[in-house]
Amino acid sequence: MTLFNVQVFSILVCLIAFAFAMYMFFWVKKQPSENATIKKIGKLIQDGARTFLRREYKVLAWFSAFCAVLILLFLPKPIWQGEASVNITMCIAYLAGTCISAIAGKIGIEVATVANTKAAEAAKKGIRPSFLTGFRGGSVMGMAVVGASLLGITVLYMFTKDTSAILGFSFGASSLALFAKAGGGIFTKTADISADLTGKVELGIPEDDPRNPAVIADNVGDNVGDVAGMGADLFDSNVASMVAAMVIATSLDKVIEGGNHVIMVFCYAALGLLASVIGVFCARIGKKGNPTRALNNSTYVTTGLYIALTALATKLFGFDWHIWGACIVGLVVGVIVGITTDYFTNDEKKPVRLVAKSSKSGPAFTILSGVSYGFLSVLPAMIGIGISALAAYKLCEGINDLYSIQYALFGISMSAVGMLSIVGMIVSNDAYGPIVDNARGLAEMGELGDDVLKITDELDSAGNTVKAVTKGFSIAAAGLTVISLLGTFMSEVNTAATELGMSAITGFDVMNPLVFFGMLIGAAIPAVFSALLILGVDKNAQRMVAEIHRQFKEIVGLREGKAEPEYGKCIDIATIGAIRELIPAGLMAIIATLAVGFIGGVQAIGGFLVGNIVSGLLLALFMSNSGGLWDNSKKYIEAGHEGGKGMNAHRAAVIGDTVGDPFKDTAGPSINTQITVVSLIASLCATLFLTCSIFY
Amino acid sequence: MTLFNVQVFSILVCLIAFAFAMYMFFWVKKQPSENATIKKIGKLIQDGARTFLRREYKVLAWFSAFCAVLILLFLPKPIWQGEASVNITMCIAYLAGTCISAIAGKIGIEVATVANTKAAEAAKKGIRPSFLTGFRGGSVMGMAVVGASLLGITVLYMFTKDTSAILGFSFGASSLALFAKAGGGIFTKTADISADLTGKVELGIPEDDPRNPAVIADNVGDNVGDVAGMGADLFDSNVASMVAAMVIATSLDKVIEGGNHVIMVFCYAALGLLASVIGVFCARIGKKGNPTRALNNSTYVTTGLYIALTALATKLFGFDWHIWGACIVGLVVGVIVGITTDYFTNDEKKPVRLVAKSSKSGPAFTILSGVSYGFLSVLPAMIGIGISALAAYKLCEGINDLYSIQYALFGISMSAVGMLSIVGMIVSNDAYGPIVDNARGLAEMGELGDDVLKITDELDSAGNTVKAVTKGFSIAAAGLTVISLLGTFMSEVNTAATELGMSAITGFDVMNPLVFFGMLIGAAIPAVFSALLILGVDKNAQRMVAEIHRQFKEIVGLREGKAEPEYGKCIDIATIGAIRELIPAGLMAIIATLAVGFIGGVQAIGGFLVGNIVSGLLLALFMSNSGGLWDNSKKYIEAGHEGGKGMNAHRAAVIGDTVGDPFKDTAGPSINTQITVVSLIASLCATLFLTCSIFY
Repeated sequence: MTLFNVQVFSILVCLIAFAFAMYMFFWVKKQPSENATIKKIGKLIQDGARTFLRREYKVLAWFSAFCAVLILLFLPKPIWQGEASVNITMCIAYLAGTCISAIAGKIGIEVATVANTKAAEAAKKGIRPSFLTGFRGGSVMGMAVVGASLLGITVLYMFTKDTSAILGFSFGASSLALFAKAGGGIFTKTADISADLTGKVELGIPEDDPRNPAVIADNVGDNVGDVAGMGADLFDSNVASMVAAMVIATSLDKVIEGGNHVIMVFCYAALGLLASVIGVFCARIGKKGNPTRALNNSTYVTTGLYIALTALATKLFGFDWHIWGACIVGLVVGVIVGITTDYFTNDEKKPVRLVAKSSKSGPAFTILSGVSYGFLSVLPAMIGIGISALAAYKLCEGINDLYSIQYALFGISMSAVGMLSIVGMIVSNDAYGPIVDNARGLAEMGELGDDVLKITDELDSAGNTVKAVTKGFSIAAAGLTVISLLGTFMSEVNTAATELGMSAITGFDVMNPLVFFGMLIGAAIPAVFSALLILGVDKNAQRMVAEIHRQFKEIVGLREGKAEPEYGKCIDIATIGAIRELIPAGLMAIIATLAVGFIGGVQAIGGFLVGNIVSGLLLALFMSNSGGLWDNSKKYIEAGHEGGKGMNAHRAAVIGDTVGDPFKDTAGPSINTQITVVSLIASLCATLFLTCSIFY
Repeated sequence: MTLFNVQVFSILVCLIAFAFAMYMFFWVKKQPSENATIKKIGKLIQDGARTFLRREYKVLAWFSAFCAVLILLFLPKPIWQGEASVNITMCIAYLAGTCISAIAGKIGIEVATVANTKAAEAAKKGIRPSFLTGFRGGSVMGMAVVGASLLGITVLYMFTKDTSAILGFSFGASSLALFAKAGGGIFTKTADISADLTGKVELGIPEDDPRNPAVIADNVGDNVGDVAGMGADLFDSNVASMVAAMVIATSLDKVIEGGNHVIMVFCYAALGLLASVIGVFCARIGKKGNPTRALNNSTYVTTGLYIALTALATKLFGFDWHIWGACIVGLVVGVIVGITTDYFTNDEKKPVRLVAKSSKSGPAFTILSGVSYGFLSVLPAMIGIGISALAAYKLCEGINDLYSIQYALFGISMSAVGMLSIVGMIVSNDAYGPIVDNARGLAEMGELGDDVLKITDELDSAGNTVKAVTKGFSIAAAGLTVISLLGTFMSEVNTAATELGMSAITGFDVMNPLVFFGMLIGAAIPAVFSALLILGVDKNAQRMVAEIHRQFKEIVGLREGKAEPEYGKCIDIATIGAIRELIPAGLMAIIATLAVGFIGGVQAIGGFLVGNIVSGLLLALFMSNSGGLWDNSKKYIEAGHEGGKGMNAHRAAVIGDTVGDPFKDTAGPSINTQITVVSLIASLCATLFLTCSIFY
């Protein structure tokens, strides 16, 4: 297997994935749609999502252009000190990363806003066609995202053979993802909270009632937050994990005779995508089947297939079995972390039920017990991530005595690649959620009747269950990715140090006060970042609630369903607010990294990254899990337990759910991207931090 | 200045402090008390507190005896491998630490439960005598705690000249403090939440209304949680900071000719106590004076005096000015961190007011905005702690080129000693709070009239303001202390390694996967620890609420004030529950440390400590500050803003306050002690971890 061959193979797999995505897209598109209301509302949702995306991308285009100029001038070295062509290449790679990330989000939105109406209509015929429509719609996003990331890296590497270019590509993808996730997260929760508070709590009208002015904004939010945002997030983790592995593999290939490490990375990544395509293709559900089981089964098929395919490739092409082992460890741990997440958020398990029970004593107990279980849920995931890093390291450090640390770090990065290998499947499952959630809303608004609602409810509930698992999975994957990016950062620093004739660094010793100083500040960043996002949702939701109150007061006949609300006004508020609030949070993380780097140099940045990873994982796990827990406790009570709807426990649980909303859908998942962005900035600016910092 | 002289000086200062404490105790005791109701209720509170303490100490005596046997057998080395006399000394030192810590708590309770009734009575004569009674009562605790810690260390060091003995002493103090803080914290919040929920929320009767069966338990809780618990907490930080400095100073004195480092530690610590005695003595308030200003002024007097006295000593005895600088940096940063804490919890500043404003939209917004500001509040404190560690390190590393790391670590430890130098004053201010809080309750129950209530309200409010500042201070102090304990751990490991003929370690490199593994788990511990404590409060409060409901149902005439509730039942529930719930949390932290140490060895423990410190500081700051913020937002609304009492905003703010209660008074401050205990265990078991771990 030569490098050229494996690259061609990668490109081929990407093309298969694209072809498959297109097939699925047209399949979804040609499904029938008849109901006029659903068509009309579907159109409103689509327009709202498109408007938001257009406005957001406009702001981000300016931001990206600004970054591109900075990169051109300063990275990897100031342009007047190094070769201009390197800076130009990195700048182009950066822009390519941002564009592909943006396109992936756009594709996701386009298909999701078609699939939602089709899935609602299909539910009239039963659970099977409706499930297939939702899932195949989601898979378009999955295949497009993973195909685009692999294709981008392969083509860039083919032409440049330069790892700093793919670092630029990854940074482009991540910086866009940071804002897309944060912006989408603020939008979706602004709308969700406002709709719930005014609709369910104040007026006592059901969820998705068309009289509620925020109801369309809520459905738009599902798309821009969960589809576009989550897609961008996993796109960026996937790219970053590959890039981290590629950087170390390239440096290994330089020193090891006949080294095939880069080949291995491409091969394993391409096989992951292939396994996902087959897994998605195999997804089936019986006539009375269980959608959760169907989703899980296709994940297991993909996982098994991936293990078999990579084992075969390892045997055929003579790759090192230790590295294969590291890769599989990552994958297995990812699945296990997902399962423990499920324990804390599944309504058949103790935590959700105890929180529901506590709610009977009032909302303060809902919050306190939810916070407690959220804190507890951190432990198994942290142990899992720690063990997989440790195992990957120990598996690979013995491969070559001379380069044992490099091999060990390569092992960790391959373990992240392994964990993210099935990301195509994960994104598909993830995008399925908001599609069927929307379908449920459309079925309600289109008055398709109780039988259809029952089906869409079941599909929606499967989406929520799977979402908890994929969220745990994506946090673990981001964690392992950034640990391997730490290795990338050190590798970049040492490359720069060698060029500059400075001594190489061997690590980051916490007894060095610069490292410790950086660590304390790095640990505070995810907290501050979350705070800014949550405050953004808080402020924005207050604006929207005021607007809804205004509409109910001023529009005659709205309460009785005789007049139509001004849906557009709510979408506007969510859009403008989200765009305004996402900038400070993202900039704060970027500026803090640069400040620490220019003050404390590479040692402080090493500590900063470590602190950021540790506290980022802690807070991301805590917020995602406690948010999911509150959501499901509320649903558990609504299903008739602890007094059921309308009773004290339910009122308390609704408050818990509202608190959990921005935890699990705004701040929690955005932290993933924040830690990746910060790690990439550190690697990109390695030379600058080495030469221009106040302390060394 | 010889070592003997400085030890004699220390002992003298301790005796002065004790004499002063006794004088204050009798001064408080001889204040008049006339009102029969106050006397009766004061007696009930005293009995309740004594009962709790007796039961808690009984359990802890068994626990300590068990630990003492383990220490005797295994620490610092298994008794069959080393000298038995060393193990015996350490065991005795450990028991001395636990006993002194227990006695300090007992003294605090005894004086506080007298001072509360006297302060209530004194309020009839005006704010001046009432303030003095409260403050002088608090100062007995302050002087006793700090005097006892300094005396204990001095005497132990005089006789043993052995740092492992004082490590044992410190571990004794900390392990008892861990349980005292956690147990007291669970007790006090169980009672507080139950009293508020049933009294204020359900029945609409005022705070401290004698018809509420939980009202005495609530007042007992202030004493056992805030007086005994907080005293034990600061006692343990103070001892630990001195011990950390002593260990490094002793090793420096061994290698530096004419080294006077131990002398310096004793001298600076004794001067700190002296400055506190004078500061407490100078505390005065005008006839119409502002109690907050009076408390702050005496803190500033103490700080200024300490700076002057240590500068004088440094000049006179030829100490190194760099080390003095490190000490002062710590002190100044401590005060600054306290002030930033005040910003986030003061009702004249933006955060409290915005949270109050958000409350108008409902409790979910109270929680979300409070969580956000709590997260934001972490940043300045983390930067402050990071900068003081960095500055102390940089100041001292140049003192001696050969031992630059040791000097640098000594600098950090002296910066912690500096920060804690005014701890006598801090404890006095801190104990003042619950005394006047109790006095307020007694004035209400004794029906002393509105004028008296206004005075006690003002005193109480000053107590709350100062409490926020001292809490920030004590977290910062614990942070710096455990950073210096990290140095102690490394020093202990290297001492053991040298003895065993193993190579010394130079630090803990985060690129070592064992370090990283330990770090991830260490970071999860404070979260799990907090979760267990909060769940403890949650469960216990539900039991107590059930009991209160039962009393209102079964006792005829209770609601009308014609019958007396069974106060004792509530105290029993709080006591039994607190003791039952405190054990798992404390044991979990201890067992996790041992497990990581025996699995991953000293490198993993190094990482574990770092992760524990970083996430512990993060969570402690977050929980203390958000809790204080919610408390003050509620008070701000009760003062008539945002609609005032009884309106929507108030109901939401009460829920926020209930969530914040265990955050700020149970979990938040207990984390301090948890990280100290874990750090001390690591140092004590250094030899075991070095020789008996699975990995190295």
